[in-house]
Amino acid sequence: MGSTFGHLFRLSTFGESHGGGVGVVVDGCPPLIPLTEADIQVDLDRRRPGQSEVTTPRNEADEAEILSGTFEGLTLGSPIAVLVRNKDHRPEAYSEMAEKFRPSHADYTYQAKYGIRNWQGGGRSSARETIGRVAAAAIAKKVIAAHFAPTLEILPYVESIGTLKASVDTATVTRETIESNIIRTGDPDSVEPMTDLIKQVRSEGNSVGGVVACVIRNVPVGLGMPVFDRLEADLAKAMLSLPATKGFEIGSGFAGTQMTGREHNDAFRMQDGRVRTLTNRSGGVQGGISNGEDLFFRVAFKPTATIMTSQETVSTAYEDTELKGRGRHDACVLPRAVPMVEAMAALVLVDHLLRQRALCGERDS
Amino acid sequence: MGSTFGHLFRLSTFGESHGGGVGVVVDGCPPLIPLTEADIQVDLDRRRPGQSEVTTPRNEADEAEILSGTFEGLTLGSPIAVLVRNKDHRPEAYSEMAEKFRPSHADYTYQAKYGIRNWQGGGRSSARETIGRVAAAAIAKKVIAAHFAPTLEILPYVESIGTLKASVDTATVTRETIESNIIRTGDPDSVEPMTDLIKQVRSEGNSVGGVVACVIRNVPVGLGMPVFDRLEADLAKAMLSLPATKGFEIGSGFAGTQMTGREHNDAFRMQDGRVRTLTNRSGGVQGGISNGEDLFFRVAFKPTATIMTSQETVSTAYEDTELKGRGRHDACVLPRAVPMVEAMAALVLVDHLLRQRALCGERDS
Amino acid sequence: MGSTFGHLFRLSTFGESHGGGVGVVVDGCPPLIPLTEADIQVDLDRRRPGQSEVTTPRNEADEAEILSGTFEGLTLGSPIAVLVRNKDHRPEAYSEMAEKFRPSHADYTYQAKYGIRNWQGGGRSSARETIGRVAAAAIAKKVIAAHFAPTLEILPYVESIGTLKASVDTATVTRETIESNIIRTGDPDSVEPMTDLIKQVRSEGNSVGGVVACVIRNVPVGLGMPVFDRLEADLAKAMLSLPATKGFEIGSGFAGTQMTGREHNDAFRMQDGRVRTLTNRSGGVQGGISNGEDLFFRVAFKPTATIMTSQETVSTAYEDTELKGRGRHDACVLPRAVPMVEAMAALVLVDHLLRQRALCGERDS
Amino acid sequence: MGSTFGHLFRLSTFGESHGGGVGVVVDGCPPLIPLTEADIQVDLDRRRPGQSEVTTPRNEADEAEILSGTFEGLTLGSPIAVLVRNKDHRPEAYSEMAEKFRPSHADYTYQAKYGIRNWQGGGRSSARETIGRVAAAAIAKKVIAAHFAPTLEILPYVESIGTLKASVDTATVTRETIESNIIRTGDPDSVEPMTDLIKQVRSEGNSVGGVVACVIRNVPVGLGMPVFDRLEADLAKAMLSLPATKGFEIGSGFAGTQMTGREHNDAFRMQDGRVRTLTNRSGGVQGGISNGEDLFFRVAFKPTATIMTSQETVSTAYEDTELKGRGRHDACVLPRAVPMVEAMAALVLVDHLLRQRALCGERDS
Repeated sequence: MGSTFGHLFRLSTFGESHGGGVGVVVDGCPPLIPLTEADIQVDLDRRRPGQSEVTTPRNEADEAEILSGTFEGLTLGSPIAVLVRNKDHRPEAYSEMAEKFRPSHADYTYQAKYGIRNWQGGGRSSARETIGRVAAAAIAKKVIAAHFAPTLEILPYVESIGTLKASVDTATVTRETIESNIIRTGDPDSVEPMTDLIKQVRSEGNSVGGVVACVIRNVPVGLGMPVFDRLEADLAKAMLSLPATKGFEIGSGFAGTQMTGREHNDAFRMQDGRVRTLTNRSGGVQGGISNGEDLFFRVAFKPTATIMTSQETVSTAYEDTELKGRGRHDACVLPRAVPMVEAMAALVLVDHLLRQRALCGERDS
Repeated sequence: MGSTFGHLFRLSTFGESHGGGVGVVVDGCPPLIPLTEADIQVDLDRRRPGQSEVTTPRNEADEAEILSGTFEGLTLGSPIAVLVRNKDHRPEAYSEMAEKFRPSHADYTYQAKYGIRNWQGGGRSSARETIGRVAAAAIAKKVIAAHFAPTLEILPYVESIGTLKASVDTATVTRETIESNIIRTGDPDSVEPMTDLIKQVRSEGNSVGGVVACVIRNVPVGLGMPVFDRLEADLAKAMLSLPATKGFEIGSGFAGTQMTGREHNDAFRMQDGRVRTLTNRSGGVQGGISNGEDLFFRVAFKPTATIMTSQETVSTAYEDTELKGRGRHDACVLPRAVPMVEAMAALVLVDHLLRQRALCGERDS
Repeated sequence: MGSTFGHLFRLSTFGESHGGGVGVVVDGCPPLIPLTEADIQVDLDRRRPGQSEVTTPRNEADEAEILSGTFEGLTLGSPIAVLVRNKDHRPEAYSEMAEKFRPSHADYTYQAKYGIRNWQGGGRSSARETIGRVAAAAIAKKVIAAHFAPTLEILPYVESIGTLKASVDTATVTRETIESNIIRTGDPDSVEPMTDLIKQVRSEGNSVGGVVACVIRNVPVGLGMPVFDRLEADLAKAMLSLPATKGFEIGSGFAGTQMTGREHNDAFRMQDGRVRTLTNRSGGVQGGISNGEDLFFRVAFKPTATIMTSQETVSTAYEDTELKGRGRHDACVLPRAVPMVEAMAALVLVDHLLRQRALCGERDS
Repeated sequence: MGSTFGHLFRLSTFGESHGGGVGVVVDGCPPLIPLTEADIQVDLDRRRPGQSEVTTPRNEADEAEILSGTFEGLTLGSPIAVLVRNKDHRPEAYSEMAEKFRPSHADYTYQAKYGIRNWQGGGRSSARETIGRVAAAAIAKKVIAAHFAPTLEILPYVESIGTLKASVDTATVTRETIESNIIRTGDPDSVEPMTDLIKQVRSEGNSVGGVVACVIRNVPVGLGMPVFDRLEADLAKAMLSLPATKGFEIGSGFAGTQMTGREHNDAFRMQDGRVRTLTNRSGGVQGGISNGEDLFFRVAFKPTATIMTSQETVSTAYEDTELKGRGRHDACVLPRAVPMVEAMAALVLVDHLLRQRALCGERDS
């Protein structure tokens, strides 16, 4: 209940930020996929803190161990468990949290819901929980490539930080461009101003939000299960399940609500023997089903809740008090959010690819 | 697969716009809830076309019949099946659709996915499918009131149509205000300009989109199941599963990404013995769990795809062609989208209320 | 919750024995399967009461109407709803049941669980509920034949009634033999004594139980999902979900517990290029996965609870009382249980066939 | 898919007999349950090999580590991951298995299904997999006691081994009696002959099966979710998901099929203000719902497939060959099957208790 995702490629993540470790069990991975810890490690390294001057200095190696489900370098078709040990225990950094709820954190709601919470760090609401998702998605991407769509490419990038908006051509942006800069934006000209902005808010003990955009190329036609499991519905859920997210839009999104139908409709034309659309305001999905155009969506991330100034709050004794943030935190989660968005997109896609194969068999698409 | 929603209050909708009928089976409704067809009919009447001068003239009575699951006016705890017959068959209005894919409709993607489609109307992608959801939600609202939260109030309203934005105070808007006008906006001053806009685009054979905002009052603390089934994640999925939706945001949403943490954080204060927040940029959810403040979210609806001008498209023989919309269609779905948003919100809430009762029992909250 | 079955070929049955009707929604049926009401009717007719002198005289036509999910004789890939109206309302036959719990019926437990029950007939616990299952299975069998295993044959038959045991060769028994007699046994010599036994217990106002055996031929290798969704585990659940069942055994079953490993093991040998077993004590399943041999299992049905003699029981006012059965009931459910066992077997198989295709794609097996 | 069990108290087991380890993630455990590794260890010790002269000498400590989901000795409401490392690696003992399929094992079917298998031991089909189940059930039993039924008692015992049948009074048998002997039978007089039988078949390189019976006392009325998730259906599935099981019967079971309704019906009488039955042929379940009487069921276990004599089989090159069992194996799994049956019963019960609380709230029963 709650920590399980996917209908066929089903994962259960586990682990608090402080405790034995974090990880995932993937139940439903096809057999015979080449898989080693190195395949997982590369994405964990992109996700982890301490990668650059703009991310939190919590520097854990985040080493993945595959506990089960592989044999001689291939998946067995049985559950794949991946464990990453927690190493950087510093509960003293959190002792004040034992007695005060941090504003706009999950402290109060966890306490109210469960009657208990692990106050040593974010517990289950920590971004550290996403390790399990990223590990599962590393496997998912290998399944997609091996069974379904070798050329499918998931390319999330930072589109804006605060009010700074990058200028990115979704048709041509490459992973190399995105991963070549510490912001993970697709616009080289935005790297310096965005870096400066993050440094500035951090120096002020403040934080800043932003938007991750994501383009996915070479998506097979026919993914998505109307009416509830529309592709965009499952993507929306996946993205809004990430910490600090506040919004999702696909294709024209909120801006499209201001257009007329005549402006908004994507005309169909045959091109190279395929049905194509001349524009892509649909964002690659029509009626809940992928139409073969690029998937395109955006995810809103709020500014990090932990700030280094005193804030009004309430104690666990339910009295008014004040709290000043401490510890090591990202002033901006956006660069590290990129691999998280990528992970959730991969998990949605692999599940829908398997579901479509179940329903319709293997067809040309 | 695909037409089933909810983990405990589980519904399966069925039916195409043309065929025997549409409806729903609700598996998981608690027993002893007073329920008659009239309880369902009132919401179906709000959803159906032909209510006013701004909605489609397809005028079907949409009469609900409860086939099972009640006895002497009370629910039995067994599956409740609700059927609404289709009456307004006019396949001739759709004959051209048999051979051409309507742009930005689901015609092409359904054909590509399934290899077949019911071209008489929208088939399963028709807004008519939402009848089953609205019927199930009418039951859900009775369960919420009887078992969990008698004062909980779900208040969606039209916030914008095209570029016209209503001015609504979410703290004071009432159902009476919203339902008293054909636009279903919370702002009396916007009714006339919005009505005029819809009439104008319709007269031009065009269409227009808009935004539905939704405030939910008196939500119990503690709803939502981290990490994947966060309350906002399930709301996002629910809303993006509605036809014509392109975006979802909760609380500060996309605008919040431009704020700093200091501006964005919601300070906690004790008020009347309860933990409250001084602002509500979180939109009533923190860490995926309701915090007792009003839930507040927005849903983006694109302009109706059916327009009365000639458009480039492709035939089912996969050749370029042109198509001009015909038949009766809303030039703007927003007024009718209001009860749909309300329905999906109720379905998410009832499921999470039941899940929370399962996990933690009945506690004061 | 409770009335939903299957992971990919998912059905929700609905309906009480008295009320608007009974039926099913199948969510997850592949598209392009030829399907008309006649395909369903043939199995409903085998299931329904009043077929012969040994079944209950409640004689309802049980006419199936397909409400959705087909178009021009083919499945659409969308939910298929099937409705059968209740016609034979005679609540007066049940008026005493309003105030007394029938022994070994579900009256008391339904009342205790839900706080309410439809006392007009068996409500949801009536064998009439299986109409939805049989309808769904008629579709399932068409999917199996079209997509997976055209020669797969599900052959349940009555193996015993009371202490009378039929002599059936599972390797050669045919559907023709089974369906040619009103007992639905595979042993022509048992028809007369079994018929006489049923008539005798009925004339005494008594009832009798029995065993249905089932052989399934030409099952693809590789069905079943260890460790929980083993093929025999899902078959066991499916069979024990039928009314009046008390036991399930596969292959050697309980008798096999008295053998030694040397006697029990099924030796492997190559035959015609396939791996075969020389014996089939496994019943076609090893390690939870089909091995290509015939599936063979048995299901125990208790004697019908309704008998025409006075019995000690308790009233709904929770006082000791007596009750004498009335109304029309089978003195022996076995002949009608045969199509129910067949239906549940088909539903398990189609789901595992789809799951295997999802996981491993379409392979030779 | 396949390794996940339970609707609300949901577990995913992972791990092969040889590899990093085995374990479980429990997603859906209520918060605030006292839980330490010691609570789990006690049941793992009952399950593990090497406990006595009648079980396999594979002697692993099977030490449980709780990786997540607890804090200061209490459950958090978040996923609980439990890991048990594999220690006793002796792949050389299995080298012949790399090239030959062991008769009546899962070797061939795993290979046929997945195209790959971990031939070092039983892989996923090993009884070692049940460690995860037993660990999860240790938690489940604490939840049952804390939230629902403090006096509920699950008492499985060995009823027969081969043709030796114990004489046990289900109304009076105690855990002390059962656990005081290495056979885990409830009949002290059967201990010696059963022990002798196991030793004898082992000395002959042979094996023997048997039956585990299980009585569950103080079960709340109202558990079970008709129509598919009947309590006996879920118990049947749970038991048949255990390795080496071939049958399940509840109450009168297969023997009951030979009775008439007059003999079989359980008369109701009021006793101490409660509805009771004078007999319990129903086995504690009527209409799929517990009636408050003792649950009583039996599970058939086939003789261990590994025997120390030469057997005909097939090689992985698909040629006829011979194989002689080696390694360390139980000649009789029955004593160790007792805690496995107990575990699966606890997992079914906790899930239905949570489901009933979700549906009907907390009521007197």
